[in-house]
Amino acid sequence: MARAARELRIIGLQTLPEVRQGDDLASLILEAAQREETGILSGDVVVVTQKVLSKAEGRIVDLAEVAPSPFALEIATRMEKDPRLVEVVFRESRRVVRMDQRLLVMETHHGYVCANAGVDHSNIPGDDMVSLLPLDPDGSAERIRRAFQERTGAETAVIISDTFGRPWREGTTEVAIGVAGMAPVESYIGLTDTAGHLLRTTAIAVADELASAAGLVMEKVSRVPVAIVRGFPFTPGAAGARSMVRPAERDLFR
Amino acid sequence: MARAARELRIIGLQTLPEVRQGDDLASLILEAAQREETGILSGDVVVVTQKVLSKAEGRIVDLAEVAPSPFALEIATRMEKDPRLVEVVFRESRRVVRMDQRLLVMETHHGYVCANAGVDHSNIPGDDMVSLLPLDPDGSAERIRRAFQERTGAETAVIISDTFGRPWREGTTEVAIGVAGMAPVESYIGLTDTAGHLLRTTAIAVADELASAAGLVMEKVSRVPVAIVRGFPFTPGAAGARSMVRPAERDLFR
Repeated sequence: MARAARELRIIGLQTLPEVRQGDDLASLILEAAQREETGILSGDVVVVTQKVLSKAEGRIVDLAEVAPSPFALEIATRMEKDPRLVEVVFRESRRVVRMDQRLLVMETHHGYVCANAGVDHSNIPGDDMVSLLPLDPDGSAERIRRAFQERTGAETAVIISDTFGRPWREGTTEVAIGVAGMAPVESYIGLTDTAGHLLRTTAIAVADELASAAGLVMEKVSRVPVAIVRGFPFTPGAAGARSMVRPAERDLFR
Repeated sequence: MARAARELRIIGLQTLPEVRQGDDLASLILEAAQREETGILSGDVVVVTQKVLSKAEGRIVDLAEVAPSPFALEIATRMEKDPRLVEVVFRESRRVVRMDQRLLVMETHHGYVCANAGVDHSNIPGDDMVSLLPLDPDGSAERIRRAFQERTGAETAVIISDTFGRPWREGTTEVAIGVAGMAPVESYIGLTDTAGHLLRTTAIAVADELASAAGLVMEKVSRVPVAIVRGFPFTPGAAGARSMVRPAERDLFR
């Protein structure tokens, strides 16, 4: 288990260029970090938004080329949505969690539960263009982590973040959909608290807390798609963000 | 709408003494911040855990003095729980959201949905002692904020945080259950993104992201119940954390 830091810094990178398909994202991040005299150091957690990763990986779809199925047409008409968008949402999903009030809450092929299966229109040039979630965000995080290691020697953790809503609460927060180099959940099971009680069930989703912390320096309307959390003593690990998906048999909110 | 900061600092206070009923929490925080040469400055967001606030406000119950109702006894037997604990959980609740797999997911009188209605055993001295959520976390946050303002002149925001689970994902994160001095949700409605698209529905739960960021320097097993987030350009506001409770008519997960 990692020790708590007295102080963390969260640094938003301001000078990343517009990312295009095929770009080497790790290099662009390293160049921006050097340009901004921050660098990427051992112990850093580098948080990268899904949107910029999806752009680099070409996970962009032109709705003009999508033919909606009869079911997508039916749902879209009833929900007053673009049937081509609904078709893409269905293709990215393995299960409908809720379909009501103009909202499609879907379970993605990775197992993540979110609105529209992560299909999103914002910050994508072109009126008919939407972005999809990366195919394998854990694998993408690991590739970026290894690139940092190979090019600078820095032992980092990398998180791919996305903006999810939550039941019962207003507003969205950033969560981790890809994790490399660190344990996404810190377990306190078996440790005792300050009163000497055994902590039996406490597990903290530190990867989600790191994504949310990074979210504080990322603005939806500006180009801050990468942030560095410096000073968090993460526990090395390779479980990936997919290990944060609660198994169906222990999920009360399927 | 607030501007994004290039850099934030998150500072965990290490020297807060053990808090007891009737203690002036604002004074203890100010003294610790001065002792640690951090201070409380204008623009700071001060995040205080529910546990330490509940102690100061005497929101502690001795289970030895609780007589469980027949229904609490029935449920406790079936779920293999302490019937006195179940009784306290029921008293703190206005609705059962899920009751399954040894979990009681409740809606509190404030409207928050969480396990055991926030009734918690950890970090409380005495085997039969449990803590309850504060009666009015927004009001408590406002009292602390005003005390900082009166004693130092600093214009701060104050967040009361608690550790909540989430559907579909493993692990807990810190969320805001009390907020004073700032807008808990930042709305981007009507603004345009980098691609020139109107952002129609984006609202970010910055108070929850701030609570999660503070959680990174707070350890369950040690005494770091207060953290300062320095450098976040919050939007002044008085809506309180209760404004983050999604109204029933727009909630797909009642």
